[in-house]
Amino acid sequence: MGNERFYQAITKTEVENILSGLVWLARETELVDLNDAQNRVLADNIFAPINVPHFIKSRMDGYAVVARDTFEATETTPVTLNKIGEVPAGATFEGTVQESQCVKIATGAPLPEGADAVVMIENVEELENKVKIFQAVSPGQYVIKIGTDVKKGEKILSKRKILTVRDLGVLSAVGMTQVKVYNKPKIVIYSTGDEVLTPGEPLLPGKIYDINSTTLYHAIIRAGGQPIFKGILKDDPNSLKTVLKRELKESDFIIFSGGTSKGIGDYLPAIVKQLDDIIFLIHGIQIKPGKPTLICAVNVEENVKIIIILPGYPTSCLTIFNQFITPLINKAARLPKETKRTLEGETAKRIYSEQGRLEFKMVSVKEEAGMFKIYPIPTGSESITTLAKADGYIEIPELVSIVPKGEKVRVFLFE
Amino acid sequence: MGNERFYQAITKTEVENILSGLVWLARETELVDLNDAQNRVLADNIFAPINVPHFIKSRMDGYAVVARDTFEATETTPVTLNKIGEVPAGATFEGTVQESQCVKIATGAPLPEGADAVVMIENVEELENKVKIFQAVSPGQYVIKIGTDVKKGEKILSKRKILTVRDLGVLSAVGMTQVKVYNKPKIVIYSTGDEVLTPGEPLLPGKIYDINSTTLYHAIIRAGGQPIFKGILKDDPNSLKTVLKRELKESDFIIFSGGTSKGIGDYLPAIVKQLDDIIFLIHGIQIKPGKPTLICAVNVEENVKIIIILPGYPTSCLTIFNQFITPLINKAARLPKETKRTLEGETAKRIYSEQGRLEFKMVSVKEEAGMFKIYPIPTGSESITTLAKADGYIEIPELVSIVPKGEKVRVFLFE
Repeated sequence: MGNERFYQAITKTEVENILSGLVWLARETELVDLNDAQNRVLADNIFAPINVPHFIKSRMDGYAVVARDTFEATETTPVTLNKIGEVPAGATFEGTVQESQCVKIATGAPLPEGADAVVMIENVEELENKVKIFQAVSPGQYVIKIGTDVKKGEKILSKRKILTVRDLGVLSAVGMTQVKVYNKPKIVIYSTGDEVLTPGEPLLPGKIYDINSTTLYHAIIRAGGQPIFKGILKDDPNSLKTVLKRELKESDFIIFSGGTSKGIGDYLPAIVKQLDDIIFLIHGIQIKPGKPTLICAVNVEENVKIIIILPGYPTSCLTIFNQFITPLINKAARLPKETKRTLEGETAKRIYSEQGRLEFKMVSVKEEAGMFKIYPIPTGSESITTLAKADGYIEIPELVSIVPKGEKVRVFLFE
Repeated sequence: MGNERFYQAITKTEVENILSGLVWLARETELVDLNDAQNRVLADNIFAPINVPHFIKSRMDGYAVVARDTFEATETTPVTLNKIGEVPAGATFEGTVQESQCVKIATGAPLPEGADAVVMIENVEELENKVKIFQAVSPGQYVIKIGTDVKKGEKILSKRKILTVRDLGVLSAVGMTQVKVYNKPKIVIYSTGDEVLTPGEPLLPGKIYDINSTTLYHAIIRAGGQPIFKGILKDDPNSLKTVLKRELKESDFIIFSGGTSKGIGDYLPAIVKQLDDIIFLIHGIQIKPGKPTLICAVNVEENVKIIIILPGYPTSCLTIFNQFITPLINKAARLPKETKRTLEGETAKRIYSEQGRLEFKMVSVKEEAGMFKIYPIPTGSESITTLAKADGYIEIPELVSIVPKGEKVRVFLFE
């Protein structure tokens, strides 16, 4: 039997507190190719499997020498050595450099055996088979030692690191081609409602095309999840029961968006209550739009799975998703919480709000005379153009019914 | 024969000016599924193929009525109508509403024929087959007209728009499943140098693993291009000639990163000069790191193709790419120029620079006592750990050799 603490709408802060208590202990991992690993989250500490460089190499174009041969060399009294070969980048020199010998060497090429320093090309005069050296070098000079850059066994990247372009370069440098990352949370999406059609189907009287599946699909990608659209569910308790049983095994989150304010929200609680180990976390939020939101946690084989019902109106659905579900997916994906982009502006006209609930009021932003002017979107959350025309929203507190013209407000921007 | 204006290193600003003159006139387009269209660039204006809503619908749960029947209704003198049926969301009512009749209707359901208004459920009393109406409604009240949200034929999205989550929702609302977008520029990457190995190959003496192909691959994705890694090219003019002929037909950009400071940079100019319609745009940049950079434009079948050689050292390669090539790819992809993230901080120690060239000095940033402290990275651009440890870089002007401790500086941050 479930915990039934939350059978009434609660505030935004209460919702955030409750959701912040959710933790994921174990997570599955997968091996991915470096090409597919940008922005993925490392599931292991990475220790360098090799030294970089893994051979002693020249830092300069010049001549590999035995340093002690050059100790007497000056600009006026050069030392002459016998040139016994060349080693370009990528090649190796097979012999050994003996006393009074030298080998021409390219930047990055391996230092031949016997040599212990490099004289820069600028400080030599090349003759037929001999080379005049005009500068003394000490052992190790212009030479890069093994492991200077990365030492074998050294920790090069830490677990939980989000892999950047540069991190992937480091993994290539040590010869890796794959890396173990946390799986993206699998998030199944269903639209519900007998009036909802999949785009592409013939339009019928009384029916409307599904919008929420598309917006949720892309919002889940942005949040770091892997969306899986499963289609439109008819308003029918039996098909819902079947879906829940199947999907709780396969996925981490199941998100339903209601086609109407009635419908799934009415009978889902009764069905999920029949599941073992279920906790009702959120059952109604005191926010306009978004009252019918429902969030449950279920324990399935030692994993926390989340069942979510979002409001059916497209603006409400996406707003509630962005506000509460994005941080939850960030967390399940082991990503840091996304910081919301905001801007400060001034209301261009009086904005009305319904008292008694916090309102996320959709607004557009225009730059006028070097200032951001904030306009309310006149259409409601049932309208798809509200979503398209809004640049973001402002929060109007529970007890405020009018925001006067000229008021400074903070706008939370959409992507 | 090519234009040979630029055979010497030029400044950062000159490079930016020259590259800003490059324009792409035509571009190929492709149809993609909405699921794959996030952040793609629209290649057409989109006009709504249907009205939204495409039927007259109820704004409320209530009763569909002939408005004139209700004109006399008040809270104390209700009007009684005959209930002749129900219409839930997604259904249609087959009959016609006559005088003195009403039909129970759900929010979003289509208004039955004959009805012209809706009385809210709160203002009725439901009896067996009759309904008492306590409020007068005018024709059209609580009814949403056809095309209220989107009118058929109305422009809903403009060519060149970068498709957001919400835009994709709008396209779904009008039933679309695919959309025409500009192709991502195809960008072929080659690493060069006889010492370079593909990660995963067995490590041999004198060889190093390829880093630049990985960092360029991911930096190209970030810039809006489609990277295609073609492997490692030996330092050999003949294979280069074959590659150029083949790839100029297939791709929009060809990027080579040199394995050493010598190598491809020495003989590529001679080979590209043999191509028709070639213009040398950049041949050397007065920036440390990045001197050996080369950029050419080639006209192939009325399309501008770009050939680029980047420095071989990983830090130099990625820095020059980010500075000059990212904006070029943004432009070819029809994306707005990315704005660089920066922060202001204070140097934590004296930083030295070579006079005579602008230097992009790699730095790390630490927050200390509420301030950003800027530390130079001690290793050079040949080191992969320089790339990994840097948070960004500061620009040190040509004539400056020392930036004192405690100086205010702007850091250009890596991703």
